[in-house]
Amino acid sequence: MSLTDIKNSIRNIPDYPKPGIQFKDITTAMKNPAIFKEIIDEMAAHFAEQNIDYIIGIEARGFIFGAALAYRLGCGLVPVRKSGKLPADTITEEYALEYGTDKLEIHKDALKKGSRVVIVDDLIAIGGTAKAAANLVQKLGANVVSFAFVIELTALNGREKLHNIADVYSLVQF
Amino acid sequence: MSLTDIKNSIRNIPDYPKPGIQFKDITTAMKNPAIFKEIIDEMAAHFAEQNIDYIIGIEARGFIFGAALAYRLGCGLVPVRKSGKLPADTITEEYALEYGTDKLEIHKDALKKGSRVVIVDDLIAIGGTAKAAANLVQKLGANVVSFAFVIELTALNGREKLHNIADVYSLVQF
Repeated sequence: MSLTDIKNSIRNIPDYPKPGIQFKDITTAMKNPAIFKEIIDEMAAHFAEQNIDYIIGIEARGFIFGAALAYRLGCGLVPVRKSGKLPADTITEEYALEYGTDKLEIHKDALKKGSRVVIVDDLIAIGGTAKAAANLVQKLGANVVSFAFVIELTALNGREKLHNIADVYSLVQF
Repeated sequence: MSLTDIKNSIRNIPDYPKPGIQFKDITTAMKNPAIFKEIIDEMAAHFAEQNIDYIIGIEARGFIFGAALAYRLGCGLVPVRKSGKLPADTITEEYALEYGTDKLEIHKDALKKGSRVVIVDDLIAIGGTAKAAANLVQKLGANVVSFAFVIELTALNGREKLHNIADVYSLVQF
């Protein structure tokens, strides 16, 4: 099992969700037990010595990799969700999508001040979602130690939006 | 760490999302590393000897517990998602919510015929979502070995909808 195996397990779907987009379908990686385990073990090895307190999982695919990583590292898992999905008091951050805007929320009492946090999503495209999640974490007084993605779409250069905030780690690149 | 500790870590939010509902907020359990680990380890112990091939995670909170459980058991994780979220060919199942109806989807090629599957969600209320997920799994020719929930709302008797399909396992009950 190697990074090439992981990369090859990700299905390409042409013209989804619109013409010209090459969508990276990670479900074909997740459903393979050896690939899914390798993804999580590789990410966990990268963060094992960094004394992480919380993994932030970004809704919805970030929950999948974030939760398994949190379990593996012995961290708490804190969700950042789309607007209106969290039941207690929240703070909100608006962010730009590739087309339009959207909102993300976190519970006001989700993170201890000064705690060390890794923000996890399946994929970084232009980086707007991850940056909004980082803003939420920082507003709660916690420290973003790193962003972590399974897939990085390097041509979109989302990394540029994030590297002034924290390290940017990705497992495979397209 | 005991089941009582897990139960006590779940926050009650009165009158959410509407008056009279006592919402069980599981985010306060997930963010506690020892509690999150205990939830997954307890569920994994229950299924360890059952030769499970795939964990089905129901969007969105089912992804969190499903993914960590899949990692722990060495299974693949297959998402069942709301309508329009999966990028490849899907089959669809409509189901009743507490109020109204909704649709769930699974990729047509997600599961091997004859494979052994556990369907995971954070909570069982009336059981409609889990039953729809089971219908999808069965249409693909896979076997639902069990349903697994962190929380069961026993007064709503959702278990009755499911026990003719497969075992129903819940970690804590309210």
